[in-house]
Amino acid sequence: MDHVMKLDDQSSRYTKGRRNHLKACSNAEVDDVSSFQPFGNPRGPAPVDGYLQVTQIDMLMRNNKANHKTVLYSNPLLIVRRGQEFSVQISFNRAYKPGSDRFQLEFRIGGSPQIDQNTTIIVSPNPGENTSWQGRLLQSPSRTILMGITPAAACIVGKYRMYVVVITPAGLVRDMITSQELYILFNPWAADDTVFMSNESELSEYILNQTGIIYNGDNNTPIPRPWNFGQFESGILDACLLVMDDATIPLSSRGDPVIVSRQASARLNSTDNINGVLVGNWSDNFSDGYAPTSWTGSVKILRSYAQGRKPVRYGQCWVFAGIFNTFLRCVGIPSRVITNFNSAHDHGGSLITHIYVNQNGETDKVRTTDSIWNFHCWNEAYMTRPDLPVGFGGWQAVDCTPQETSDGMYRCGPVSISANKRGIICYSYDAPFVFSEVESEVVVIEEEPNGDDKVLQVNQSYVGSLILTKEIGQDTLMDITYTYKYPPGSTEQQMAMATAQNYGSASNRSALPKEDVEIKVLAENTMIGKDFKLNIQFKNLGRSVHNIDAVVAGNVIYYTGVLGPKISDSAFSVNLEPLKTVVKYVEVNAKDYMSKLLDQGNLSFFVRAKIKEMGQVISTQSVVTLQGPKLTIEVTGNLKVKQKMYFTVKFTNTLKYDLTKITVTMEGAVVFASKTKEYSHIASMSSITWTESFTPTNEGPNTLIACLDCALLRQVHGWVNFTIQP
Amino acid sequence: MDHVMKLDDQSSRYTKGRRNHLKACSNAEVDDVSSFQPFGNPRGPAPVDGYLQVTQIDMLMRNNKANHKTVLYSNPLLIVRRGQEFSVQISFNRAYKPGSDRFQLEFRIGGSPQIDQNTTIIVSPNPGENTSWQGRLLQSPSRTILMGITPAAACIVGKYRMYVVVITPAGLVRDMITSQELYILFNPWAADDTVFMSNESELSEYILNQTGIIYNGDNNTPIPRPWNFGQFESGILDACLLVMDDATIPLSSRGDPVIVSRQASARLNSTDNINGVLVGNWSDNFSDGYAPTSWTGSVKILRSYAQGRKPVRYGQCWVFAGIFNTFLRCVGIPSRVITNFNSAHDHGGSLITHIYVNQNGETDKVRTTDSIWNFHCWNEAYMTRPDLPVGFGGWQAVDCTPQETSDGMYRCGPVSISANKRGIICYSYDAPFVFSEVESEVVVIEEEPNGDDKVLQVNQSYVGSLILTKEIGQDTLMDITYTYKYPPGSTEQQMAMATAQNYGSASNRSALPKEDVEIKVLAENTMIGKDFKLNIQFKNLGRSVHNIDAVVAGNVIYYTGVLGPKISDSAFSVNLEPLKTVVKYVEVNAKDYMSKLLDQGNLSFFVRAKIKEMGQVISTQSVVTLQGPKLTIEVTGNLKVKQKMYFTVKFTNTLKYDLTKITVTMEGAVVFASKTKEYSHIASMSSITWTESFTPTNEGPNTLIACLDCALLRQVHGWVNFTIQP
Repeated sequence: MDHVMKLDDQSSRYTKGRRNHLKACSNAEVDDVSSFQPFGNPRGPAPVDGYLQVTQIDMLMRNNKANHKTVLYSNPLLIVRRGQEFSVQISFNRAYKPGSDRFQLEFRIGGSPQIDQNTTIIVSPNPGENTSWQGRLLQSPSRTILMGITPAAACIVGKYRMYVVVITPAGLVRDMITSQELYILFNPWAADDTVFMSNESELSEYILNQTGIIYNGDNNTPIPRPWNFGQFESGILDACLLVMDDATIPLSSRGDPVIVSRQASARLNSTDNINGVLVGNWSDNFSDGYAPTSWTGSVKILRSYAQGRKPVRYGQCWVFAGIFNTFLRCVGIPSRVITNFNSAHDHGGSLITHIYVNQNGETDKVRTTDSIWNFHCWNEAYMTRPDLPVGFGGWQAVDCTPQETSDGMYRCGPVSISANKRGIICYSYDAPFVFSEVESEVVVIEEEPNGDDKVLQVNQSYVGSLILTKEIGQDTLMDITYTYKYPPGSTEQQMAMATAQNYGSASNRSALPKEDVEIKVLAENTMIGKDFKLNIQFKNLGRSVHNIDAVVAGNVIYYTGVLGPKISDSAFSVNLEPLKTVVKYVEVNAKDYMSKLLDQGNLSFFVRAKIKEMGQVISTQSVVTLQGPKLTIEVTGNLKVKQKMYFTVKFTNTLKYDLTKITVTMEGAVVFASKTKEYSHIASMSSITWTESFTPTNEGPNTLIACLDCALLRQVHGWVNFTIQP
Repeated sequence: MDHVMKLDDQSSRYTKGRRNHLKACSNAEVDDVSSFQPFGNPRGPAPVDGYLQVTQIDMLMRNNKANHKTVLYSNPLLIVRRGQEFSVQISFNRAYKPGSDRFQLEFRIGGSPQIDQNTTIIVSPNPGENTSWQGRLLQSPSRTILMGITPAAACIVGKYRMYVVVITPAGLVRDMITSQELYILFNPWAADDTVFMSNESELSEYILNQTGIIYNGDNNTPIPRPWNFGQFESGILDACLLVMDDATIPLSSRGDPVIVSRQASARLNSTDNINGVLVGNWSDNFSDGYAPTSWTGSVKILRSYAQGRKPVRYGQCWVFAGIFNTFLRCVGIPSRVITNFNSAHDHGGSLITHIYVNQNGETDKVRTTDSIWNFHCWNEAYMTRPDLPVGFGGWQAVDCTPQETSDGMYRCGPVSISANKRGIICYSYDAPFVFSEVESEVVVIEEEPNGDDKVLQVNQSYVGSLILTKEIGQDTLMDITYTYKYPPGSTEQQMAMATAQNYGSASNRSALPKEDVEIKVLAENTMIGKDFKLNIQFKNLGRSVHNIDAVVAGNVIYYTGVLGPKISDSAFSVNLEPLKTVVKYVEVNAKDYMSKLLDQGNLSFFVRAKIKEMGQVISTQSVVTLQGPKLTIEVTGNLKVKQKMYFTVKFTNTLKYDLTKITVTMEGAVVFASKTKEYSHIASMSSITWTESFTPTNEGPNTLIACLDCALLRQVHGWVNFTIQP
């Protein structure tokens, strides 16, 4: 805030000779409005005698909220969507005579609102007098009138105050006592709105669904993580407006979903912003905050930020994507969370990810600055892009995880996904970075003993191998890989790559070294705390015998692709007849990895094989996700409005190891805000049971999420859907 | 700096599990390099016996600087340009045997330099071993070798350290004692560089010319202001690299002129940046700093910033453009300062400038947030735009005057001028804002007594009426209006406007009210301190008689278009026969304006005329620039190298008023840094004379600039060109 204060000081002091002062960037009201505004020079007090006086305004809450699909918000004020009519009932001290009486509605937002900035809007009951927002009388007027108001489909989104202003010959009489607050949101149901979405089942998912699924895990075993977006919970809408204020989005830009989503992507992380919402932490020490894996939803994070005005600790990518999704759905921009498996993080701005390894298969941490995350989550927001040529609207990628700076800040997007698919990466914002996340080529370079480098492996299909989001209306996965990229190796994909290279963001694709032997790594029954076998297949694609010396290096690995401590090392030889496959097994023992496991329970195995006959070295890396014991949630009771019902979370520690300092959380969008229970100890093979009661007040479908978190076991969660009958 | 420190802390603490840490944004060296770097595991001390040892490196300063056009820099280190070979001479302890001895050069920049980030570059004397920077032996090798190095044409621009590294079987032996520092700059002489410019006379102006002219004044009377860019003066190159550091431009992006010019445009002002270079001040109080009009060049500002690390007080647009030009030419990006007369400052993001006036011709300061600056200066930088489709390279507008935020910060550009001319405003960065500066339509709205608004005047050719820069190789003006816009009203201009509207940045053009009477305002002999006559012509374009009631409101005006105090008011009637012109004269008296004048000496006259027969009201506004007394500079002496010569500044106060607290400054790029003399009082009709001596050390053409500044008279400056003989 200090910085903002300074700007205001400077503005008033140094800009006397300028008409353009700094823009208003706060939704907070400033009481600079007067009850009487004379025409011309002041001529004494307002002659209100005989003129209309307002006695009461009714915002017709129930009707308007139902029509504007805002019933779900836990908020006492009127919430409507722009580009769609709402109605208010105004009572005067006597009958309103349209011929002789004149009045208008005035909507104001923020400090020093101005007509030119669209922060003050005048609406007349006579349609002919309006240009931007429309107004009309809905009934023949008497002492009480019913007036319909249609905010412009491009108007500013935020919290307004509405005044009734009576026009007298001496000036404007603005009634202060009856003035009313209301929120106006984006309207994906309105065809004129830039966030318009025509399909009702999509709208039910992408605006109205308060619960969702975010995919973690790996390429072969995506793990669904339930998430309570809670965009309608009490306090969340105000928290989202606060994020816009703190992001210093000028009020006059708050009707533009491109700018709103971009600047929110900067403010939701705290990397450049001392007061950003969420602190990223990719270490394994979360002792002065909450582990990223322990969150079950966005509500607690956004409320905590709004109350304390301090960054909340800690998040990783799915937590950032979770809160961003809450923000977008809350303000009315259709959105979803997506997961990109083997997501390249291109540090150098090329389309190539360089990984340097030594002869033991260990990554050179000094030289390697690019990385491939096992998965990375970001958001898609749905909007037209009037700032770009026609054809690039629709889903836009936006990402608030602080990965790389964009135009001076940690933020990303919006990027048109349809443009990116075709390699058209010249348009705002950050298209080359997102293109690289799903299309980057991986070049593994081995450092030879004499200091020279040798290309060990070039892979053009590893990155962006699978892109997922939750299915519409169901708890299953939807594969959206094809929306981001053409099939690897297809002509279309080559053309997209060539197009991207034309925009100067790419080096030439490396030549693929020819390989005579193919290696595949498989693992089954990879339960946490259990021993398992790696199944390594060597396939001879050539017509001569090959003798192979192989080493397999096992490490725990962060989901960001960074290796942790080593867990195993094995070496063996293979004799490969032409066109044959040989399978070797490598034992992986729980005692070797259990004390080293990181939060996502991932292990990496790097296989390096030297073909003796040719001197050629080939390699492959495989990531294995260990599965933990599950928790179960039982729902009992009558499942009827105003009757008590019960949720029971059960968990059995099937590991051979005791768990300590365990946190269990239950959270449901409509049910209750997150409830937490702490356990100091759960011995091996013992169980816990926790029951909470709940008395529903509304009928309808609903979801409860539960999560168990401790240092040894960070991926235990579950959810249950249920429907309350009337 | 606190903020930056915080980021570093966070980086090390929270990003353990991420490979991608925050990017290096400082050119400052960090001593993290070792003299021995073993291969594989360390095997004891380096076995240097018998291996090559470096004894000396000669950077061949004179030859390299001449070839790279960097002789003019007052800097003891080697300065070369990328994409062009330079040579160094390396002496060893014994003869170098190419067959058995191996060595390489290592160039490092910034902290933790890395090969992947192009912050460490290895150059071998064997061309076959190089991929990015080229190296070769230029003579047959002996104990001393001559090696040619060609930095990549896209390499990072900044200050490097060069090491000779000898390769032994045990590891790399890096000689620390002989290591050398050098600067590598952009190279507009190299065809591969994105700032390539083919014309040598353009390069002499846009890179090598240290002096220039910036146009102030108004549309009818552009006033040339001399400016000492001083880009080669001692300390300036380091100050420019400091600006890049403080702008936190990642080192890996410092080879890209798009990013470098954009981020510099943010850092050269101090509006978002507590530590930006120059503080904008558009008030009329500069008592705690220097008046913007008192500067004669950039050198003092940039040196003061580099030394004090605090924003320098005060600048207005031509000062911002002056220092930005110094920055660009210094780092090697061709650039010029341009002036746009009647420059719209569009606050609302539309293509229309709304001016609200009352019936006395006074601007409504609350409702009017758009403005039209009498003139506005910005810069053009020359580069290709590989980030955009083909055809949008060439001159790009960049602007560091803090007018409007762009993507969250006060900065502007680069904007392709050729794209803007055609209304293609969808490409990065800030095209709609710059388009509006030169193409905005002006709508003057009058507030009626009953509170209603009425469009008084719509003008589609007022804004951007003239765009000027200095001519190449001469001190005259070059009209470049046509590079920004098609002729007003032409089909091409209509199409450009329609194209811009397609990108969603514009409202519909207003309908022009039909006018029967035309008003023109002329003024002659407008000398400061003298009375003069306004000549107001009323021309009847119709076929009926018109009787007109006219009022003329005179105000002093800031160059930003904001009105200051009123100086005169007059009213009269005109009887206009069909197709006739009537001229009325209005006296403007010095006693009315002298005590109120603002720094640019501008007066505004707003004429409002009501045609009685039709009830129609027409209006026009005219800005008059008052001319001050001139100063003269005499050059005497022999004008030969090593002989004393003299500059004499003479000024006579021809005003009827005494001047007080006067500052006179002399400054020349090669001559001397700015010298200042203070006078407490110059009485009316009295003169001052100030002589300074100078002994040139180099031959060639040169310029001296002088400026006199006091509160009453802020636009007195002059310059003289002279040539020193050998």
